[in-house]
Amino acid sequence: MRQSELFSQISRDFPKDEVSVNARFLIRAGFIDKVSSGVYAYLPLGWRVYKKIEQIIREEMVAIGGQEVFLPVLMPKELWQKTGRWDSFGEVLMKIKDRADKEYVLGPTHEELIAELVRKNIHTYRDLPKAIFQIQDKFRDEPRAKSGLLRGKEFMMKDLYSFHATRQDLDNYYEEAKKAYFKIFSRCGLKAFAVEASGAGFTKEYVHEFMVKTPAGEDVTVLCDLCGFAQNKELGQYKAKKTCPNCGGILKEEKTVEVGNIFKLGTKFSEDIGAYFVDRDGQKKPVIMGCYGIGVGRLMGTVVEVHHDEKGMIWPLSVAPFAIHLIQINHPEQKIQNKIQKAAQKIYNTLTKKNIEVLYDDRLDSSAGEKLIEADLIGIPYRVVISEKTLAKDSAEIKRRDSEKVEFVKLSQLLNYFKKALNS
Amino acid sequence: MRQSELFSQISRDFPKDEVSVNARFLIRAGFIDKVSSGVYAYLPLGWRVYKKIEQIIREEMVAIGGQEVFLPVLMPKELWQKTGRWDSFGEVLMKIKDRADKEYVLGPTHEELIAELVRKNIHTYRDLPKAIFQIQDKFRDEPRAKSGLLRGKEFMMKDLYSFHATRQDLDNYYEEAKKAYFKIFSRCGLKAFAVEASGAGFTKEYVHEFMVKTPAGEDVTVLCDLCGFAQNKELGQYKAKKTCPNCGGILKEEKTVEVGNIFKLGTKFSEDIGAYFVDRDGQKKPVIMGCYGIGVGRLMGTVVEVHHDEKGMIWPLSVAPFAIHLIQINHPEQKIQNKIQKAAQKIYNTLTKKNIEVLYDDRLDSSAGEKLIEADLIGIPYRVVISEKTLAKDSAEIKRRDSEKVEFVKLSQLLNYFKKALNS
Repeated sequence: MRQSELFSQISRDFPKDEVSVNARFLIRAGFIDKVSSGVYAYLPLGWRVYKKIEQIIREEMVAIGGQEVFLPVLMPKELWQKTGRWDSFGEVLMKIKDRADKEYVLGPTHEELIAELVRKNIHTYRDLPKAIFQIQDKFRDEPRAKSGLLRGKEFMMKDLYSFHATRQDLDNYYEEAKKAYFKIFSRCGLKAFAVEASGAGFTKEYVHEFMVKTPAGEDVTVLCDLCGFAQNKELGQYKAKKTCPNCGGILKEEKTVEVGNIFKLGTKFSEDIGAYFVDRDGQKKPVIMGCYGIGVGRLMGTVVEVHHDEKGMIWPLSVAPFAIHLIQINHPEQKIQNKIQKAAQKIYNTLTKKNIEVLYDDRLDSSAGEKLIEADLIGIPYRVVISEKTLAKDSAEIKRRDSEKVEFVKLSQLLNYFKKALNS
Repeated sequence: MRQSELFSQISRDFPKDEVSVNARFLIRAGFIDKVSSGVYAYLPLGWRVYKKIEQIIREEMVAIGGQEVFLPVLMPKELWQKTGRWDSFGEVLMKIKDRADKEYVLGPTHEELIAELVRKNIHTYRDLPKAIFQIQDKFRDEPRAKSGLLRGKEFMMKDLYSFHATRQDLDNYYEEAKKAYFKIFSRCGLKAFAVEASGAGFTKEYVHEFMVKTPAGEDVTVLCDLCGFAQNKELGQYKAKKTCPNCGGILKEEKTVEVGNIFKLGTKFSEDIGAYFVDRDGQKKPVIMGCYGIGVGRLMGTVVEVHHDEKGMIWPLSVAPFAIHLIQINHPEQKIQNKIQKAAQKIYNTLTKKNIEVLYDDRLDSSAGEKLIEADLIGIPYRVVISEKTLAKDSAEIKRRDSEKVEFVKLSQLLNYFKKALNS
């Protein structure tokens, strides 16, 4: 894409009303815009990142047998009364009336409707196990939404739900889902730890939270860097031990933004909603459920919290809005400028024809300094500069965003260079 | 996908509380489920269709320079007060308060927020023209939501917005968008007509609605089948003419679901919100806007209204949940059954390895009659039957859903047959 055609503009300053690193960088660089406290719009650069994260999650959900669905935001009060959560969910639950005074919940999560679909679609043990997931807009009336994409009033979430005839089958699937979660975080460039935690009124043993180390973290986790053992400090199981009970390594306290969680729901929702199946023995039994959430926007915000420096964001290639930021350094002398533009356009055409994603800074009214500062802010993995200086060597200057090293590559070798670099 | 693993079940009966053809078929076949009046959940089969329609729309929007964004459902009251629509939108507008008594709109459309983004991101004539679009959940408190996916309280919509420095530039882009719309409908298997209409309080000449002929239609349009001339009867321009003013063909009154509309908004929203740019002449001027909507769920419902018979749905290949419905007809004798299963599984593996989408009816507890009736209801374009009878000829029986013709194709030729058929 040509940067001159990009809808969003880069701001000169950081937004005044944001304190979190992710919101400050993402808004300033034009990835997102703040609409209201905890409510953000995704602009073209941000939506490209979002879509890549979403696709990674989708692939890993399909790989563990998840079938994609899409449930509505509006759910009738009656469904939420059946589980008691119309009242017990508290002020976080957003409620609305229609013109006929019928009341609805704006879904903060979807267990009630999922159990209702299970009631309608699962009848015997032969219909089990199954798993469905969705990637969808959710709503929580958070009292303080100050962490950018990490905690929103409205936020994108992936929620997977699994259904089982036996506890053993749930246990097995739960472990499979845990592995898929580690894969997702790793593919997004994050090292996550699974922590046993107390969650939403369910028994402690039933919950795992996935934590990522970041100074913006709202939790404290005790981590063993050697084996990955992790324990939520608030659970009180830490007891001032300094050595890992697993491997004997040294335990450290770290700030951690939870990026996902998995629950063994058991039969709470299927019993409340009436989702029963006939088992092999002819008995009617409640379907055993698990649920597995990832905040997609939150994951995007976490990537920024973990991967940035003082100059801007440093996107991992897998989720970067573009692989290459091609920058044409303008020259006041028209003849030289023509040569620079011609070379840059040729590179742009050559790379994009091979489906390599390039943001081409073709803007004529920006100085070299502005362009390089903005490129660092945007944080695309590879920066390719074309200037009078590089063309004198018949070359482009290449710099990775996560390194200080600069190298010159002959123009004729550029495509091969990137074919190699981007496949690695 | 193996049908035994599919989450949703096919119902024996049509839903009792639905009158529209699309809702009756889609719910019975397990494509969607009704959550509340005008509120539907997309189940795996339905979501596959939805995603294909969405991708067709996305491709055509990108082809006319649209940049994808994603705006929130929640928009602050203040923004909607600036344009007067907080009051003038009427009871259709869904409003909600948060715990701090701050009021929001649940977006039924997004002109206000779009104009606000234009205000922030477009400053001079050099920033124009631009176009952004989103595909997203929208909310309207419809008094009567009885048409299935054709008219929902909550519904998926694509909305494109374009921004221009001159009226001429808007006019040119409007014509480009019109062509893109015809392409979208045609790719989805629909023949659409563009009708001038009166729309939402804007001048008549500024609006085109895209109409599709269907007995479920809520509008009456005067159509010329010869040249495609179309006129909305309610505009009163028809005046009992029987011949087309364009080509002299015969005009007919037809029932038509509107599936999309395009507006020349002009400067209404940019003036109200304050989205101005500095033109070449140094003058500050309001940005000229156009907007272009398609109800994605409505389009899906329309495809069903147009493409069905008394047995069920008939999906055009481009938007079908699967290209092929492979049906294994079970046999009571285990030795023959093994042979049938082996052959069907081999076909399934061969086709799916080539990325051909196959729904494989591997269910052991359904009779041949049930399977064939359900296949007609689901409406996948190609039905491939493997039975004792077909294997005696070393063949599969192939039938297109939209034809009565049955043909036998040698198993060894099946892959080649479909490579050819699906590319056409």
